[in-house]
Amino acid sequence: MLKLNRLAALIRHHILTSSTAAGSGHPTSSLSAADLMAALFFGGFFRFDVKRPQYHNNDRLIFSKGHASPLFYALWAVADGFPKKELNTFRKFGSRLEGHPTMDFPFTEVPTGSLGQGLSVGVGMALAAKRDGLPFKTYVLLGDSEVAEGSVWEAMQSASFYRLDNLVAIIDVNRLGQSRETVHGHDVRAYARKAAAFGWDVTVVDGHSFKEITQAFKKALRPAADGASTKGKPTMLVAKTFKGRGISFLENKPDWHGKTLKADELAQALPELGEVDTSVTEALKRPRLIAAKKDALHKAAAVSYTKGEKVATRKAYGNALMRIRPKYPHMAVLDAEVSNSTYADGFKKKFPKDFFEMFIAEQNMAGVGLGLWRRGKVPFLSTFAAFLTRAHDQIRMAQYAGAHMIFCGSHAGVSIGEDGASQMGLDDMAMFRGILASTVVYPSDAVSCEKLTEAVGGHEGICYIRTTRQATPVIYDNDEQFPLGGSKTLRKSARDVATIVAAGITLHEALEAYEVLKKENIPVRVIDLYSVKPLDIKTLKRAAKETGVVITVEDHHAEGGLGEAVASALAPYAATVESLAVRKMPRSGKPAELLEYEGISSAAIVKRVLQVCEHKRT
Amino acid sequence: MLKLNRLAALIRHHILTSSTAAGSGHPTSSLSAADLMAALFFGGFFRFDVKRPQYHNNDRLIFSKGHASPLFYALWAVADGFPKKELNTFRKFGSRLEGHPTMDFPFTEVPTGSLGQGLSVGVGMALAAKRDGLPFKTYVLLGDSEVAEGSVWEAMQSASFYRLDNLVAIIDVNRLGQSRETVHGHDVRAYARKAAAFGWDVTVVDGHSFKEITQAFKKALRPAADGASTKGKPTMLVAKTFKGRGISFLENKPDWHGKTLKADELAQALPELGEVDTSVTEALKRPRLIAAKKDALHKAAAVSYTKGEKVATRKAYGNALMRIRPKYPHMAVLDAEVSNSTYADGFKKKFPKDFFEMFIAEQNMAGVGLGLWRRGKVPFLSTFAAFLTRAHDQIRMAQYAGAHMIFCGSHAGVSIGEDGASQMGLDDMAMFRGILASTVVYPSDAVSCEKLTEAVGGHEGICYIRTTRQATPVIYDNDEQFPLGGSKTLRKSARDVATIVAAGITLHEALEAYEVLKKENIPVRVIDLYSVKPLDIKTLKRAAKETGVVITVEDHHAEGGLGEAVASALAPYAATVESLAVRKMPRSGKPAELLEYEGISSAAIVKRVLQVCEHKRT
Repeated sequence: MLKLNRLAALIRHHILTSSTAAGSGHPTSSLSAADLMAALFFGGFFRFDVKRPQYHNNDRLIFSKGHASPLFYALWAVADGFPKKELNTFRKFGSRLEGHPTMDFPFTEVPTGSLGQGLSVGVGMALAAKRDGLPFKTYVLLGDSEVAEGSVWEAMQSASFYRLDNLVAIIDVNRLGQSRETVHGHDVRAYARKAAAFGWDVTVVDGHSFKEITQAFKKALRPAADGASTKGKPTMLVAKTFKGRGISFLENKPDWHGKTLKADELAQALPELGEVDTSVTEALKRPRLIAAKKDALHKAAAVSYTKGEKVATRKAYGNALMRIRPKYPHMAVLDAEVSNSTYADGFKKKFPKDFFEMFIAEQNMAGVGLGLWRRGKVPFLSTFAAFLTRAHDQIRMAQYAGAHMIFCGSHAGVSIGEDGASQMGLDDMAMFRGILASTVVYPSDAVSCEKLTEAVGGHEGICYIRTTRQATPVIYDNDEQFPLGGSKTLRKSARDVATIVAAGITLHEALEAYEVLKKENIPVRVIDLYSVKPLDIKTLKRAAKETGVVITVEDHHAEGGLGEAVASALAPYAATVESLAVRKMPRSGKPAELLEYEGISSAAIVKRVLQVCEHKRT
Repeated sequence: MLKLNRLAALIRHHILTSSTAAGSGHPTSSLSAADLMAALFFGGFFRFDVKRPQYHNNDRLIFSKGHASPLFYALWAVADGFPKKELNTFRKFGSRLEGHPTMDFPFTEVPTGSLGQGLSVGVGMALAAKRDGLPFKTYVLLGDSEVAEGSVWEAMQSASFYRLDNLVAIIDVNRLGQSRETVHGHDVRAYARKAAAFGWDVTVVDGHSFKEITQAFKKALRPAADGASTKGKPTMLVAKTFKGRGISFLENKPDWHGKTLKADELAQALPELGEVDTSVTEALKRPRLIAAKKDALHKAAAVSYTKGEKVATRKAYGNALMRIRPKYPHMAVLDAEVSNSTYADGFKKKFPKDFFEMFIAEQNMAGVGLGLWRRGKVPFLSTFAAFLTRAHDQIRMAQYAGAHMIFCGSHAGVSIGEDGASQMGLDDMAMFRGILASTVVYPSDAVSCEKLTEAVGGHEGICYIRTTRQATPVIYDNDEQFPLGGSKTLRKSARDVATIVAAGITLHEALEAYEVLKKENIPVRVIDLYSVKPLDIKTLKRAAKETGVVITVEDHHAEGGLGEAVASALAPYAATVESLAVRKMPRSGKPAELLEYEGISSAAIVKRVLQVCEHKRT
C-alpha cells in the first residue's frame, strides 16, 4: 500500500503540473480516479508490455471518461511508456498528448471524449478475447455523469448477455458533473442496484482506499472456479470518490470542473502531495505470452447471378458475407436484431461464432464493432439505414480511431413502400459522406453489391454500403469489376442532350427513362454512380461537358447525398447540375407510387429531360 | 370483464381484417397488446374526448411500438374516433392510416416506428402536465424488444428524477422479437428488477387477464395520498403476453413477425374470436374539464451590444433565451448538463420552472422536447454541436411530427481549440440541413445570434442555431434585421474578383482576408451567410455572376454543410464554386493554429483568392 500511496501522489503531481502547463484540461476529474487507476496499474493486476502496446494478449484499458486525460497520460508516463518530459506538451499543437486521448498516443485503445461510449468498446474487446481464446482482461473507466447515457445501458445489457467475465468496469462516482451534482450524487448504492439488475457482479468500494480497491480487483480476477455464483458475469466496481481528491481546496468542491490551477495555486497545491520523486517509474506486470493464431487466407468464390434475374441488393449483401469469409477470416458480423431483413442471417447460420447479435441497440453495436476492429477483426454491421442514425455519434468517434468498419444500411429510401417514413433511410448517405476518409457505395444490382461488399471488406476507414429492400434486375456480368471511386456509363451516344446520374433503385428508373426518351429520339447518357464517395470526377466532368447538363436522381433527401456530392464536385468547373431527390414528407404506399410522388420515378426523369430540352431550345 | 372480452375480440377482428386487406403490417405484435389496450381504453381509465383530440386535458397515449399500428387504429375506431370502414384503407397510398402512426391520423401523439423513442416523449408530456398543473395522465405502450434501446433507460432515469407519478408505461412482453427471442424472453421479473432499480413503481401482470390488468391500472391511478410509498414515482406495468394471442396458429409462434394472414388463413382465424358485432363502438371516459391558462404575450426587449465588443455567440444565445421569454411565455429550455458551456444557465437561474435538466442523455432530451412541443411548449434544446449527433434518430423522427423545436449546438468546429476532435461539431450543419423543412442559422456575432434566436423561436419546423465557443467582435448595429433566408453582403465593389461566402467564425477570417487583399488592391466581395437553410439564392447568384467565382469557407466538414448548400443551389446556373472546409483529421491546439492547419484561416482565404486571380490571368 505504501508503494501505491507513493505512486498515486506522483500521478497526482503529473496531473496537476501537466494541466497547469497546458492552461486547460480536467485535473479535478483526473484526481478522483487516480487511486483507482494507480491500484489497477501498480497493484499487480494490469498486465501489459509497454514496449509492444499492440501485443495481442496485453490487457486493455479504455478511458471512457476521456476528459481525465491528464490521469491517463500520467499513468502511462509512470509506467515508463513514454518520456515524462513529454507531459509538458499536453494539449499543445502537434503533441501526441491531445486534449482527449487520440490514436496519436500509442496507449490509446480508441479515442474518447464523447461520453458513454467506452463500455461498448470494452464489450467488443472482451468478445474478441472470448472468440480468440485469449485470457487478457478488458478494463473500462467510466465517469458517473456519463452513466446517464443510454449507450452505457445498452453495453451493460450486451456484456451480461454474452457473459463477459473478462470485462471489468469501474465507475468513478465523484458526485459532481460539469454544472451540477449528478442524478445520484454520492448514492453509490443506486448505481450498484442498477448494475446488479442488469446482470453484473457489483462491488461497492471506497475509491480512495487501496485496501478496498485491491480486494475488489482480486475478486474480479479470481478464476471462475473460485466463485461459481459470479461465473459468467462481468464485474462492476462502483467507487465512491471525491473530485479533486488530494488537494484540500479542490476536493469535493463545485465550480472546479474543467479548470486548471494557476501557477500560484499549483505552488500551493503541490506540497499537499508530500515528497514526490518525479524521476520514479514502475513496471507493469507482464502479459502472458501466447502464440497468436494465424488464419489462412483464401480466395473468395466467384459471383454467380443471371442477368435479368431479380435479386434485392440486401440479399446480395447477405450472400457476399458468406462468400468472402475465406478471404477475410477475421470477419465479424453484427446485426441489430433484423438479420432476417438485412440478410445477415445467412452468415449467422453458417458462422455462428463470428456473428454477434446486438439486439435493437445500434449505439452499442457501433461501439462493439469498434472494439472488435481494434482487436483485429473486420466488422460488418447491419441494420435498416434509417436506424444507423441512432449510432451517428459512435460512428463520428470511430472516424477518429481510423477504424476500418463496414456498415450496411438496408431499406434505403421511399422505395421500401408501405412501412412508411419512420423506416426509410433518407439521410444515411449524408451522414456517412460527412465522415473523414469514408467510403460510400450504393449498388443497384446483385453483382455490383457483391463486388463492392468484397471491395470495402479489404479497404480501410469507415465504409458504407446502402442496400435496397426491393428486388431489382441483375444488370452486370459476373466478371464485371467495380473499383471504388469508379462509375459505369451504361448508355452513351455522341449526341446526348443530358446525363442522368443515379444509383441503387433510381438507376433502374433512369434506364427506363432512357428507353422512353429513346423512342422520342432524345438520347441521354446514363451513369451508375455506385461509388458515391470517392467520386469518379473525371467521368462526371466529361459527361457534363459533352451533354451540357447533369441530372442527379436519388432516393434520399436532397441534402448531403448523391446530388450534392456531384454538384459540389463539379462546382469548380461551372457545370450545370440539377437534382431530383426526396423533398416531400414521405408516406405509406406502393414503391412505385412513392417514387412517383417524390418525383424520382422514370416519368419524373423523362419530364425533367424534356424541360431541359425545351430550355435549351428557347 | 365481459364487456372487455367482447371489445377485445372486436379489436382483434379489426387487427386481422385490416392487415390482411393491406397485405402487410404487424398483426401478431398487435394481438399481444390487445387486452392491455382494451382494458386501458374501455375499463374506465383512459379519459379522452374523441371529438377534440387536442383538448388540453385529454389523457395521452403514445404507441412506442409503432408497428402495432393495426391495434392502434382498431382501438380508436372502436372508441368511435373515426369511421370503421376507413380501416380497410390501412397502408394504402393517400390513407391517413399509414404503416406506422403518423400525424395524418388525428389521434397520433407523435409518429413512432423507430423503436425506443416513445417513453421520452411521454416524459415530455408528463413534465408539461406537471408544469401546467393539469391532471391528465400519459400512457406509453412499449414492446419488449425496444427495451434494449438505451434511450428507454435515459427516459426511465429522467421520469424517476422528475418524480413523474402521472406517467404510466406498459411493456408488452410477448417474448418474440423480429428474428429471434428477446434478451429476456418471458422473464418478466428481469424487466421488473431493472425498472425498480431505475426508481419506478413496478407491477407484473398477466397481460391477458383483465382482472390483473385493471387492478394494476387502478393502483397506478390511485391518488398519491393512498399510497405514500409510491408517491412521486412513475408506474410500470410489466405484462407477460403472447405474440399472436387469440389465434391458435399464431399464438407464441416464431416466424410470424410482420406477416399478415392470407385470405384463407383469415377465414380460419376469425371464427376463433367467437361472435363479433363489427358495428359496436364504445365511448371513452370523458376528460375533466379544466380552463386553459393563457399567458399574456409581450414584446421582447431590445438587443443591446456595442460594436467591436467581443461576445461569444453561445453567450448571446443564452442572453437571448432570457430576453425573448416575454414574447414566448411557453418556452421550455432543456440542456444536457452543459448549461454553463452553452449558456442556457442564465435562463435556468431566472426561470427555473421552465428549465429542464436532461443530464448527459441527448436522445432523451430530444424526445422530451418533442413531447413538450406536442403539449404546447416551444422547446429550446442545447448541448455541444458534436453531441447533438447522439440524437440524430430522434431529430429524424421529430421532423415527421412537424415539430417546432429549436436546437442550439455550441462549440462548433475546430475553432474550439485544445479540447480536440471529440468535442468539435463538424457535421452538425449536414445533419440539420438533411431534415425536411428545417432551418439552419449560423450567426457570427452577438447581435445576429440574438435576432436569429428570436426569429426561430417564432418560426416553425426543426430549427438549428450553430454557436461558437470563442468570443467574436460584434459587427452589426443593434437594430439590424436578420430575416430567415437572407444574407448580408458586408464588402462589395464593382470590380470584385471573387466572392467569399462564410458564416460564424470564418466570417471574421473572411473579413480579415478582405483587408489583406485590399492592401494588394484585390477587391473581393464578402457575404455573411447567416441563414444556411433556407438560402439567399438571389444574392448568391448575383455574386457568382458579378465576381465570377464563389469561395465558401466553413469550420465544418466539406460534406453537407455551407459549401455544398451553396454549390448545389448554384449548380443549375453553371456557376463556379470552390470550397474551403475541414478536410484533415482535427487535433488539439490553439484556435488560430487549427484554422490555419485546416486551411480555413484568413491566410488560406487570401491564398485561394490569389490562386483564382492567377488562374483568371492565365
